[in-house]
Amino acid sequence: MKQALTVVKIGGNVVDDPTAMENFLHAFAHLPGPKLLVHGGGKIATRTAEQLGIATQMVEGRRITSEEMVKVIAMVYGGLVNKQLVAGLQALGCQALGLSGVDGNLLPASKRPVGAIDYGWVGDLHADAVNTPLLQLLLTGGITPVVAPMTHDGQGHLLNVNADTIAATLASSLSNGFEVTLVYCFEKPGVLRDADNPDTVIPILQPASFQALKTEGIIHSGMIPKLDNAFESLQKGVKKVVICPWEGLKNWNPAHTPGTLITL
Amino acid sequence: MKQALTVVKIGGNVVDDPTAMENFLHAFAHLPGPKLLVHGGGKIATRTAEQLGIATQMVEGRRITSEEMVKVIAMVYGGLVNKQLVAGLQALGCQALGLSGVDGNLLPASKRPVGAIDYGWVGDLHADAVNTPLLQLLLTGGITPVVAPMTHDGQGHLLNVNADTIAATLASSLSNGFEVTLVYCFEKPGVLRDADNPDTVIPILQPASFQALKTEGIIHSGMIPKLDNAFESLQKGVKKVVICPWEGLKNWNPAHTPGTLITL
Repeated sequence: MKQALTVVKIGGNVVDDPTAMENFLHAFAHLPGPKLLVHGGGKIATRTAEQLGIATQMVEGRRITSEEMVKVIAMVYGGLVNKQLVAGLQALGCQALGLSGVDGNLLPASKRPVGAIDYGWVGDLHADAVNTPLLQLLLTGGITPVVAPMTHDGQGHLLNVNADTIAATLASSLSNGFEVTLVYCFEKPGVLRDADNPDTVIPILQPASFQALKTEGIIHSGMIPKLDNAFESLQKGVKKVVICPWEGLKNWNPAHTPGTLITL
Repeated sequence: MKQALTVVKIGGNVVDDPTAMENFLHAFAHLPGPKLLVHGGGKIATRTAEQLGIATQMVEGRRITSEEMVKVIAMVYGGLVNKQLVAGLQALGCQALGLSGVDGNLLPASKRPVGAIDYGWVGDLHADAVNTPLLQLLLTGGITPVVAPMTHDGQGHLLNVNADTIAATLASSLSNGFEVTLVYCFEKPGVLRDADNPDTVIPILQPASFQALKTEGIIHSGMIPKLDNAFESLQKGVKKVVICPWEGLKNWNPAHTPGTLITL
């Protein structure tokens, strides 16, 4: 039987709030068994770019990663946020180690081809080329990798990568060696039937119920790609995907997960 | 017989010069056998702090690491410079992985006690507590650690640490498992008899000749603590210390090192 592994992704709402961050780190440090954290960067990158006089480039409503902006991402995500999270976990006795996709060529990628939009220095991951032996070496050595959302193109250039995508890609790649639960820490209590009512959490989603809820129009807009990605991870070998608030990690019981459980 | 390991330290003069950096990375990537790089940060940290409106605090001519400055160090040294070096090495086929003293609790340290001067968030390393098993795990896995000059206090706070000190501490700690050569890449061709004449490199220094040159006043001022540290590393088990320019790494021959060779 494979060993259980928990892959947790936290977003900017946790990173930007010192109290939430501290409480999250407590909950994460106490998760049983091997685990891995993928973090976003929050608003610090945008704020730092503004302070450095770097304009945010937008094309058709999409943010473009300029040459200067990818340096800010390396500074803020790869440096400050990553090291603060690792130091915070270390202080709680969790043997954390910060990584990015660059380190050990963890996440090989290519610069996104220029189509209708030139996204700039954004990476498309080579999902089949993830350096899982490196993660296995660390995890079996009792180390908790903390992964910043950035990588490189193999030719010396840094690339910006979405943290959700990194979490899904790492979870899928590691499912050959581990029984992986992928937890997206979300700002809401789970996937909601009524986006404005936190009491309407859908406790479990499977392919049939997901299709039905989409047809009924109950699950719509931004939740659809998020859930499509969750089901794709399951098809690639991830055992369970959980969408819950970071508070859901407290007193974590893998048999009774909070929020919305997504399975095949 | 122990395996040979080369520990190289580069300073800001290489980091700040793109051409020097590129050529250095080529030379470093081609060094034979297991190796480890410790880097300084150069002027980018000072420049970034200025751009962010963070004043450089000086007390009695010494730079103080403020709460805001240690964040800039995490951004610039731990993030941008570290990831650019790792991406550059990866592009040359060197399986580099970025670390700081925080990661895996590599370099346990304490905030320097406040004496005549309060240096702020500067770390004094616990040299006996270096996580050498982590480095051995990586080195035996064919990985080249690239270490940024910063660590933490074990209580969640980041600390600034001198890169020369980190290089010496890592070299000494690793000498239990490896035959270590510690190379300080320097802006001059080696230790000079006449600081203004690059043709006066002292090819070899041993305790007796060092004493004699100090007595004669040929080695003086800033070189004395640097060389004291080199001899201390040797006493702690490092096999050789080499002080040479980064160009000295090209066509490296461990039996005929460039610059100044320091041995017991």
